[in-house]
Amino acid sequence: MRQSKNLKDTPRYCGIPTFFNKPHTRELAGVDIAILGIPFEMGSAPGNIHAPRAVRNVSWLVRSTNSYHLYDTSALKIVDYGDVTAYPSQYEKTFANIEEEVTEVVEAGVVPICVGGDHSITYAELKAINKVYPELALLQFDAHTDTHDSYFGDQRFTSGSVFRRAVEEKLIEPGISVQVGLRGTLYSENDYKVSEELGFQVITAEEVQEVGIEEVVSRITDRLEGKKVFLSFDIDVLDPAFAPGTARPEPGGLMSSEVFRILRRLEGIDFAGFDTAEFNPSHDVGNITAVLVANIIFEFISLIGLKKHRNDNPREGV
Amino acid sequence: MRQSKNLKDTPRYCGIPTFFNKPHTRELAGVDIAILGIPFEMGSAPGNIHAPRAVRNVSWLVRSTNSYHLYDTSALKIVDYGDVTAYPSQYEKTFANIEEEVTEVVEAGVVPICVGGDHSITYAELKAINKVYPELALLQFDAHTDTHDSYFGDQRFTSGSVFRRAVEEKLIEPGISVQVGLRGTLYSENDYKVSEELGFQVITAEEVQEVGIEEVVSRITDRLEGKKVFLSFDIDVLDPAFAPGTARPEPGGLMSSEVFRILRRLEGIDFAGFDTAEFNPSHDVGNITAVLVANIIFEFISLIGLKKHRNDNPREGV
Amino acid sequence: MRQSKNLKDTPRYCGIPTFFNKPHTRELAGVDIAILGIPFEMGSAPGNIHAPRAVRNVSWLVRSTNSYHLYDTSALKIVDYGDVTAYPSQYEKTFANIEEEVTEVVEAGVVPICVGGDHSITYAELKAINKVYPELALLQFDAHTDTHDSYFGDQRFTSGSVFRRAVEEKLIEPGISVQVGLRGTLYSENDYKVSEELGFQVITAEEVQEVGIEEVVSRITDRLEGKKVFLSFDIDVLDPAFAPGTARPEPGGLMSSEVFRILRRLEGIDFAGFDTAEFNPSHDVGNITAVLVANIIFEFISLIGLKKHRNDNPREGV
Amino acid sequence: MRQSKNLKDTPRYCGIPTFFNKPHTRELAGVDIAILGIPFEMGSAPGNIHAPRAVRNVSWLVRSTNSYHLYDTSALKIVDYGDVTAYPSQYEKTFANIEEEVTEVVEAGVVPICVGGDHSITYAELKAINKVYPELALLQFDAHTDTHDSYFGDQRFTSGSVFRRAVEEKLIEPGISVQVGLRGTLYSENDYKVSEELGFQVITAEEVQEVGIEEVVSRITDRLEGKKVFLSFDIDVLDPAFAPGTARPEPGGLMSSEVFRILRRLEGIDFAGFDTAEFNPSHDVGNITAVLVANIIFEFISLIGLKKHRNDNPREGV
Amino acid sequence: MRQSKNLKDTPRYCGIPTFFNKPHTRELAGVDIAILGIPFEMGSAPGNIHAPRAVRNVSWLVRSTNSYHLYDTSALKIVDYGDVTAYPSQYEKTFANIEEEVTEVVEAGVVPICVGGDHSITYAELKAINKVYPELALLQFDAHTDTHDSYFGDQRFTSGSVFRRAVEEKLIEPGISVQVGLRGTLYSENDYKVSEELGFQVITAEEVQEVGIEEVVSRITDRLEGKKVFLSFDIDVLDPAFAPGTARPEPGGLMSSEVFRILRRLEGIDFAGFDTAEFNPSHDVGNITAVLVANIIFEFISLIGLKKHRNDNPREGV
Amino acid sequence: MRQSKNLKDTPRYCGIPTFFNKPHTRELAGVDIAILGIPFEMGSAPGNIHAPRAVRNVSWLVRSTNSYHLYDTSALKIVDYGDVTAYPSQYEKTFANIEEEVTEVVEAGVVPICVGGDHSITYAELKAINKVYPELALLQFDAHTDTHDSYFGDQRFTSGSVFRRAVEEKLIEPGISVQVGLRGTLYSENDYKVSEELGFQVITAEEVQEVGIEEVVSRITDRLEGKKVFLSFDIDVLDPAFAPGTARPEPGGLMSSEVFRILRRLEGIDFAGFDTAEFNPSHDVGNITAVLVANIIFEFISLIGLKKHRNDNPREGV
Repeated sequence: MRQSKNLKDTPRYCGIPTFFNKPHTRELAGVDIAILGIPFEMGSAPGNIHAPRAVRNVSWLVRSTNSYHLYDTSALKIVDYGDVTAYPSQYEKTFANIEEEVTEVVEAGVVPICVGGDHSITYAELKAINKVYPELALLQFDAHTDTHDSYFGDQRFTSGSVFRRAVEEKLIEPGISVQVGLRGTLYSENDYKVSEELGFQVITAEEVQEVGIEEVVSRITDRLEGKKVFLSFDIDVLDPAFAPGTARPEPGGLMSSEVFRILRRLEGIDFAGFDTAEFNPSHDVGNITAVLVANIIFEFISLIGLKKHRNDNPREGV
Repeated sequence: MRQSKNLKDTPRYCGIPTFFNKPHTRELAGVDIAILGIPFEMGSAPGNIHAPRAVRNVSWLVRSTNSYHLYDTSALKIVDYGDVTAYPSQYEKTFANIEEEVTEVVEAGVVPICVGGDHSITYAELKAINKVYPELALLQFDAHTDTHDSYFGDQRFTSGSVFRRAVEEKLIEPGISVQVGLRGTLYSENDYKVSEELGFQVITAEEVQEVGIEEVVSRITDRLEGKKVFLSFDIDVLDPAFAPGTARPEPGGLMSSEVFRILRRLEGIDFAGFDTAEFNPSHDVGNITAVLVANIIFEFISLIGLKKHRNDNPREGV
Repeated sequence: MRQSKNLKDTPRYCGIPTFFNKPHTRELAGVDIAILGIPFEMGSAPGNIHAPRAVRNVSWLVRSTNSYHLYDTSALKIVDYGDVTAYPSQYEKTFANIEEEVTEVVEAGVVPICVGGDHSITYAELKAINKVYPELALLQFDAHTDTHDSYFGDQRFTSGSVFRRAVEEKLIEPGISVQVGLRGTLYSENDYKVSEELGFQVITAEEVQEVGIEEVVSRITDRLEGKKVFLSFDIDVLDPAFAPGTARPEPGGLMSSEVFRILRRLEGIDFAGFDTAEFNPSHDVGNITAVLVANIIFEFISLIGLKKHRNDNPREGV
Repeated sequence: MRQSKNLKDTPRYCGIPTFFNKPHTRELAGVDIAILGIPFEMGSAPGNIHAPRAVRNVSWLVRSTNSYHLYDTSALKIVDYGDVTAYPSQYEKTFANIEEEVTEVVEAGVVPICVGGDHSITYAELKAINKVYPELALLQFDAHTDTHDSYFGDQRFTSGSVFRRAVEEKLIEPGISVQVGLRGTLYSENDYKVSEELGFQVITAEEVQEVGIEEVVSRITDRLEGKKVFLSFDIDVLDPAFAPGTARPEPGGLMSSEVFRILRRLEGIDFAGFDTAEFNPSHDVGNITAVLVANIIFEFISLIGLKKHRNDNPREGV
Repeated sequence: MRQSKNLKDTPRYCGIPTFFNKPHTRELAGVDIAILGIPFEMGSAPGNIHAPRAVRNVSWLVRSTNSYHLYDTSALKIVDYGDVTAYPSQYEKTFANIEEEVTEVVEAGVVPICVGGDHSITYAELKAINKVYPELALLQFDAHTDTHDSYFGDQRFTSGSVFRRAVEEKLIEPGISVQVGLRGTLYSENDYKVSEELGFQVITAEEVQEVGIEEVVSRITDRLEGKKVFLSFDIDVLDPAFAPGTARPEPGGLMSSEVFRILRRLEGIDFAGFDTAEFNPSHDVGNITAVLVANIIFEFISLIGLKKHRNDNPREGV
Repeated sequence: MRQSKNLKDTPRYCGIPTFFNKPHTRELAGVDIAILGIPFEMGSAPGNIHAPRAVRNVSWLVRSTNSYHLYDTSALKIVDYGDVTAYPSQYEKTFANIEEEVTEVVEAGVVPICVGGDHSITYAELKAINKVYPELALLQFDAHTDTHDSYFGDQRFTSGSVFRRAVEEKLIEPGISVQVGLRGTLYSENDYKVSEELGFQVITAEEVQEVGIEEVVSRITDRLEGKKVFLSFDIDVLDPAFAPGTARPEPGGLMSSEVFRILRRLEGIDFAGFDTAEFNPSHDVGNITAVLVANIIFEFISLIGLKKHRNDNPREGV
């Protein structure tokens, strides 16, 4: 394949389907961003394991430059780090692998973007990131709190209890963390209260719709400014019209334009890492969720790049 | 099936697909809400007959508690009353069955939620409900007026003429009724005027988009407060992006978040019954319409429960 | 629902979607056949958990009488026994439930038909059936041997190793068992030899295509006549053109007409139970696999009924 | 549109979607074949009304020459006669329209090919054709006998009772008629016997699979040679793998190659007309049924043309 | 087909699928509007060639009267002019055909509505329209600027460079033109600046979302009032949730209600012609994009009719 | 990714989607087989460009060992050579790239397997292969002859004329070549005669169905034994039930089991290269065509490996 420098010289759909047509390598020297697939799920939302593959497939559609920030990401060194080896239904072995691989990335000074997988994986990612950034805030986009204690009697490491575990093990500090987009039917009247009592700030989807984007951004940045932040993006924060590809769809969610407008205004935040979870290609229609996930990851890349640009050019201002 | 009290102890997708995993029974003693399937259509929008089945299938996704009202519906006794026996293309025999079954429900003091089927069925439901509540207001969510006189020469009992018939036979009082969400191309310039001259208040989709949710809610509650109201929800009030599963899609419709925000603010209204119509699974994609319909029915259940709760606890306030 | 005796008096699509519109009950007195859903999978072929629901949904299409045997199954008492409570990714707890429930059925003298789920569940079913019928032959329709030792290092209870476990624990006797329809790419040259060395008779798909139905039937009946037999039907024995709804499709498989012609000629065999496995609705297209599975189960019902009929009318002959 | 004589000069997908890109006209002078759409259904298999449109859409794929007969149909004058006006659920008015339009065609000496719609329409077509050809044989390809007496108490004009009505009203002579491809579950043991007692010759799908194409053709031609024959083709005669687009799919059916091989060997038969029924686009996947129906209609056209060619060139032989 | 005057007398889905059930003819005398299909694409977004057919198929859903303007389009004489003969991958021959056919339409005083095809076709349309209206403004709804210089080295006549060519050849005047809805990832930071330096006014999707419909309409009408305007509507201006049927989807786009609200407020503009581009049926789900495109074309028809009505009735006012 | 030697140690769906999980490299030293994607099409069957990507995606499903030959391909060194850079609609530049890349492969003594793309690409592949093997036979599996002279006046390098060009330029020798599976409607009575007069042996699909696999294999091997052969596999040779993913589907085609049985019996043939063409993912349903194509390519790999094995072990026999 004679792949030229100038992307326009080769149709972007040519070539091996890596994330954003970036090279697949495990060399981390000089790398800014490593994108990892984590094809794992605990079984109640079957199909998530094929998400990394589905995102790779459509990510050629994404070009290099952010049209809001007018920022060209070509200057960043980004790699497709491959998939973490994940064993069906075996979370202990799999979490060990996730932790090991993400640790390698973070310790190399590289920002990880993890592409799940169900939301249970974030626990293992946070174990790795917390080693380097022990005082970590969480910015969670999600329809659900994911702070339940356990499922089916004794299942404690599921997508629905991941942030309860993270708080218990002090991987994140709920007092500086935010959950955005909560909605849908609940198990009990206390579901949101549980999150709040753990310390999280809660912003429901209906609040976003009522107070508007500017106010939401200001609540988030007020809480997160100056902290080291992990952004965990559960696809179901979006309305099923925009992101049908998920196994626990909750109507009444955010529009993709609202999500973009929020993300683009977070350039002042200092992010330690990112992930996307709960994209389920077997529920997708016409690949619209896959394309949306790829574009959301591109916004993560832009946020990392803008921060790096500011650090490298401190006098420029934003 | 060892189905435990605590829903979290059994995966919700286990078991016979009844509405919301509720017991299937025709015993009405002590029941608050009976959900009936009405698999009937008059033929021009083929596929609606399979809607009750499609809603049953996905309704396990809905949990017990309303996240806006923080109201747990578990206290309500809800049953899946089964399907009304409906004969393809034979509206007279079918309407007689619908009337008989809904009458049994209403006369037992139980609130019926009917899951159509095309919109023609509402006529037969109203015949039953009107016997108990002779002064009945209609709150209709719909892209279409459904007040045409007849189709194809002499077809008078169709989804497009159902409310003309209802007015003629005094099953509803148009002077205290509202139609919300009207839009799309019309047969003539007079279509909306016909509705208005019958007495209906008309709020178009574009008006909803321009005046905002609060104003729409206030127009509705101003008109309906203190009345006994039947809420008829035609799925096509939603934009096809949110509810592709319908045979006469009209782009430019409401978002699901807008519908939820309106419905949740109607808790002051005294509802005699509910239905959903025109959900057509053969047009659905990725089940997103089915899931949306199930969640809309859950809002109906919440409205019934909140009312009952207030009646049982008069001093509490809302 | 006024459901009349005569099926033709009510459209079959009316009503709660139980298996074949049969009553959902856990009473086993006087019952001939209990159909159980087993919504379980070990994670590598995600989506199988929704198979029981998908089969229930389309099973109304199946009428009461077998057109080959001209045998009316209405005389049989068949129940939808509901779903075994199955926990995502937790095979030990789930297998215990399966074993307990199938044991209840078999000990009541009722023939179980289990609707999986992935193929790992057959292990637990066989544990139950083996208690009553300790000398059990297996008739396995499958593209794969499912006699691998383990996966991913130490996963020993998977769909690919289920019959290795069953042989090790003497739940079946391989020396009187048959595997029909094997094909597709293998892990090693020894995969079929492993099955044969365990004692199984192996008939590949290509052999079926070359020797013809009559010869295949004769090989099967020669081996199984006079034995107590469990029939385990993995959907992937069919070519993906006929059964796209499976997660490990192997082109070059059997046609549905070939499968029917084989099954219908097994009426001399004495079956202790049946299951279907690996139907995955998330891979299905246009429900054709679901409809096929329902019709295959109907052939199981017919085989049970014909046997019972012969036992009840010993002088009639077949 | 500059549509040239030579089809290869214009991409076939250009232009208005008429049947086989033929002119849409109601002029019958000089016409050999008129293709009529009949968008009607009685309601139990919803979606058939859109079949004529779906066939028109893909029929550009079909070229002019039959590769088996090496016969070029370009010499025939074929028109798209449009759709019969059909009213949803109103069979009396609709059947009157069908009868009137088909009568016009047949009385003009033109061979009609009717594209349904559900199978109930054949009754009305036969009323028209019987006027001109009072001694009419039926060649029916079908999974079902369609000789039931009535449905749901008193529905006598349905797709399942169409040939019972036709026999009662002497529109066809069952003693010279054949039903090919019967299979699937039955309402009772007598379903096939009913057909046989009416006089039909019955050839089941399993018989086709066992005796082979040559023998089936010989049974058909033995019975039909020298008669005036109406060929009614119910799409469900095909296995759902080949024709998923139908509402009562019966696995175990014929392959499309088998159907072609039978149809192509019927050139000695004298056909008075043809129809296709029960193609349901809402069940189709990837348009494969639509394309198959178009190709089957092309075989009808070829049979008409070959007959005409022989009549015009009596000394040539076949 | 007995198609009556009153549309309600015949089900609209009956008949040959022309645009809006209008007659297919190439006679232009007395005609107000000619709708042309242009089944052409340059290859990078495969599937657009089938768009005219897909729009014809669903356009029966659109009734005669605009519900916002309460304007009945029945008075207009509208024809389906057929498809321009377009050769796969051969733009020169195809563009010549487009230019010739559109010229015939425009020179006959008829307003053309062209249904593409990819966006490259607009170049050829503009060549035709520019002959009659040499001072032409462009109103472009689009996610992309389409003002790139060339692709893959030397491809200069593509969908992405169409308006660069149009400006170079003075077919449009960028200084009086507007691009609405731009967004998505870019090839470089200068993409929007390139458009602006050519002279276009640029309104991004995010600006539409932030300033609101009223302000957007006022910017557009300020610029276009008094000019002769060509409206080119690229389907990808809509969010993929509303219009999944396109090959370069860009999440974060406009809602269909927003597009309708803008279009309906442009009745003061003097339009010389319209087109739609980049609708790709192979990416559509549940036909929702096809239906949306048909309704957008109906808004074009309304704008033409309202203008004509004002011209014919100068004293009425709007 | 810790990808172990033993495939069973890592779930096969983990990792970058290369062909069969093989390394992506352009190093040819020591390589046995290079698989190249060729994402090109000439425009009349839009969607083929995405075929290489779709095959890569599902090819993890294929294991290492051929179950018919009991041959393990792990010993072969196979690489994913990437995609040839192909420009939309520009066949000259693209064919030059194909020729250059395939030449590199063949001249390195590596067997190329090209994954199209439409059938026009085979011309360029043959130009490369012919340089090394000037006396080349063609074994073509196809529904169509692809020996037309030109399309649309002057398009001479299309999928329908590729083998006419190849014969004219003496890239293949038709006198030692075979076309298998021809069927479907033709442009004229002479289409097959044209192929035969060029020198090809023609075996229609109906002949395959009538004479049986053994006879077909013997006709092919009689003609090809001792020659250097290029195998070109057009997916449309398969019936649309088995391979819906193609843009010119022809019902009545081969079953996948028939194709496998033929291919597996060609191990005596000496192949110079292989390709697959006309797989169109936008027409596929449930990925069944993609999976079938991957398995067919695996049969090519097996044929290459078996030949190499025999050459390396001359005394073993087959």
